[in-house]
Amino acid sequence: MSQPSISQALPHIQILNPETLGKPLGQYSQLTRVKASEFLFIAGQVGIDNVGTGKDGKAPADFDAQCGLVFANIGAALASQGASFANVVEFTTYLVHSQDIAKFMAYRAREFPRLFSGGAYPPNTLLIIDRLVREEFLIEVSAVAAL
Amino acid sequence: MSQPSISQALPHIQILNPETLGKPLGQYSQLTRVKASEFLFIAGQVGIDNVGTGKDGKAPADFDAQCGLVFANIGAALASQGASFANVVEFTTYLVHSQDIAKFMAYRAREFPRLFSGGAYPPNTLLIIDRLVREEFLIEVSAVAAL
Amino acid sequence: MSQPSISQALPHIQILNPETLGKPLGQYSQLTRVKASEFLFIAGQVGIDNVGTGKDGKAPADFDAQCGLVFANIGAALASQGASFANVVEFTTYLVHSQDIAKFMAYRAREFPRLFSGGAYPPNTLLIIDRLVREEFLIEVSAVAAL
Repeated sequence: MSQPSISQALPHIQILNPETLGKPLGQYSQLTRVKASEFLFIAGQVGIDNVGTGKDGKAPADFDAQCGLVFANIGAALASQGASFANVVEFTTYLVHSQDIAKFMAYRAREFPRLFSGGAYPPNTLLIIDRLVREEFLIEVSAVAAL
Repeated sequence: MSQPSISQALPHIQILNPETLGKPLGQYSQLTRVKASEFLFIAGQVGIDNVGTGKDGKAPADFDAQCGLVFANIGAALASQGASFANVVEFTTYLVHSQDIAKFMAYRAREFPRLFSGGAYPPNTLLIIDRLVREEFLIEVSAVAAL
Repeated sequence: MSQPSISQALPHIQILNPETLGKPLGQYSQLTRVKASEFLFIAGQVGIDNVGTGKDGKAPADFDAQCGLVFANIGAALASQGASFANVVEFTTYLVHSQDIAKFMAYRAREFPRLFSGGAYPPNTLLIIDRLVREEFLIEVSAVAAL
């Protein structure tokens, strides 16, 4: 495992909602413009407790709890490279049940202001698919970040 | 909202169909090779009329009409940064009904020659999924562009 | 079609599994950190025989055979630009049947050590969706690579 290095210069990330595109349908923005020297590609993260003290490799049954673990895992991936949520340039979110869309919207509305300063939420594409790698996973989020 | 700046230097974008990969199954290419100083990550766009005069936040029931709005919205996102469809390096397209695959193929065959000069259509990955964020959305397209 | 050029300098690609993220659930890694001058965006590849001598544009019915063709096609796309699997920074894998998850895991466990030296498998997001562009396709994989 390589030692994470801290990126010195901040990348130039603009998170934008052009007027011509209308208001986003949730806590995301329409586009990112980024000038960066390095990128992180983070594999889709699921609701496994890697970070907390409960580390058992199991996903909780509760959607909100899975959301919390997914974003904690993404945060850990970012932190491992000296980055934070401010470095994220794109999310892609996969849900298994359309019934969870409203819960996901509520989760972001409640938690994203804490993760992202100034309301600059990265672009997100939200997709409802059949299944994730394990039956019990209800949400998976992949991310691209810039350093 | 930041003022869009016009990118000065053209990025070096090659849209390629290597002979070893066979003919693409539609109006797309097998790969893009890009040397760019900046990237745009555009959130998945849906068939909402943000650009036209009818701006009502509703999606038309018609698949073709949704396609038109999706690509108009992507065009608006690109234009907001002084870019055009020539800057797109990758599309990902999500359809809700497999019955719309043929319609999507026909839409691209008809409209893409107008959007892309010289038949250099960006790589696209076409996926049929369960649902998009709202029941009435039939197509969503996300894009990465280079400046 | 442009003549492929050979990239001179190796990109700086680190494939990482931070301890805080737990063990990946298969032959993939949690994240890539990349400093590159050029990127390749490769359209989702399906199990069509473009590379072999059997070139008939048909997909075999067998899942494993489709996997082999998918990765052969990605390899051909990479090779066309003087690159190899060592240049891949991200995969996204789409399966149509959840019954094929175990087969996909077995395929990677068996074949990836041959494709990737030193067990540095790129991040992958594995998704089960409704359908691909043609009914007979069971797997599609898109990739981003760095030159």
